Amino acid sequence: MALKLYDLAGAEPERRFSPYCWRTKFALLHKGLPFETIPWRFTDKGVIAFSKQGSVPVLVDGDHVVSDSWAIANYLEDTYADRPSLFRGEGGRAVTKFINAWADGLNGALAPLIVSDIFGLLDDKDRTYFRETREKRFGTTLETVGANRDADVLAWRKLLQPLRAVLGAHPYLGGATPAYADYAVFGCFQWARCVSPFRLLLEDDPVWAWRGRLLSAFDSYAGKAIGYPV
Amino acid sequence: MALKLYDLAGAEPERRFSPYCWRTKFALLHKGLPFETIPWRFTDKGVIAFSKQGSVPVLVDGDHVVSDSWAIANYLEDTYADRPSLFRGEGGRAVTKFINAWADGLNGALAPLIVSDIFGLLDDKDRTYFRETREKRFGTTLETVGANRDADVLAWRKLLQPLRAVLGAHPYLGGATPAYADYAVFGCFQWARCVSPFRLLLEDDPVWAWRGRLLSAFDSYAGKAIGYPV
Repeated sequence: MALKLYDLAGAEPERRFSPYCWRTKFALLHKGLPFETIPWRFTDKGVIAFSKQGSVPVLVDGDHVVSDSWAIANYLEDTYADRPSLFRGEGGRAVTKFINAWADGLNGALAPLIVSDIFGLLDDKDRTYFRETREKRFGTTLETVGANRDADVLAWRKLLQPLRAVLGAHPYLGGATPAYADYAVFGCFQWARCVSPFRLLLEDDPVWAWRGRLLSAFDSYAGKAIGYPV
Repeated sequence: MALKLYDLAGAEPERRFSPYCWRTKFALLHKGLPFETIPWRFTDKGVIAFSKQGSVPVLVDGDHVVSDSWAIANYLEDTYADRPSLFRGEGGRAVTKFINAWADGLNGALAPLIVSDIFGLLDDKDRTYFRETREKRFGTTLETVGANRDADVLAWRKLLQPLRAVLGAHPYLGGATPAYADYAVFGCFQWARCVSPFRLLLEDDPVWAWRGRLLSAFDSYAGKAIGYPV
């Protein structure tokens, strides 16, 4: 039986833009597990109340319910230990957790640059919730939060330096083949791609080529997703 | 025959404070390789001219000369492949390179907080060189560069968040046992400890306990080094 994943969506059911859900989708693809996704909106709290919290991703695997992308990755690694490893051993799990937390910070730094583009793509029922929570978080209106993004993206690109150090020597953070460390970071770029025409990367950046490899991975699962060709 | 390591020293020959040399010393200890260290000062360029560059660490292993801490780690891993692994496989090497590059950034952000303390510990022959190069780098005098460090350290501690994410779940970045990822980051803290009484970490920070484990590792090799008990 296919696993079920509650996956953040916009007004269009197929616009799936959560960076954390992208991590989980790639983890499922990496493990080769069949799964179906269920479009979910920010205000559908009741729909996932069975998970005892209010955010996606939520994974349902038979009787097992797991939320939080890192917990899901660990669940998949341990439950499907006979399938390709996401972490490649216990040492790999710890260093991957490091990169996962670093990528959380990258998401946080990216949010002000793209959050204004998200609003217009949301289902009507999510808009008030989104505006209120994000304007509180950023301390300003959605219309002004990304006003300096042409300049701010230059500082954001500097945060990518550890990525570039690896990608000059290896095709993936996982080495010769991708691993969960790649998916954790890729979620950030795919989030942006799904919601914003704003250009994050320059084509001569090794991160650009790496992102392209992941867009093509798993029969272009991410590359085929609704988004902007940037 | 013991390997030889040229190791940055202050006026006191046993004050060894380079974060990059600390990475290499821990890599040698991890591999269980006998080595001797040779105190070296910033202006001893002629002494390591055989390495075709001007910085330490420089490792001499029989006929092999390797400089740059990351190149040395790779050399040791590949040459002494039958000894405990620094990276734990090719995937581990790539993610470790990521953390290594992240730690380089951590060093860069720490430098303004401690550089003024380094000056007074240097051999007389290094002082003019050090003042000129560092004042050019920081765009201000050594006497003023760290003037706001009581406030700046609060921002610096926030950079440690990915470390804390791991150390809440694992004793080391390497998982249950330390690996080169740990040594790459530990070098930053040991650098500070060797040169500055300035308090970087609070005792309730999980990074504090991790640092303590590494100070005790390998028969307290780092814990016994000349430095400040902070």
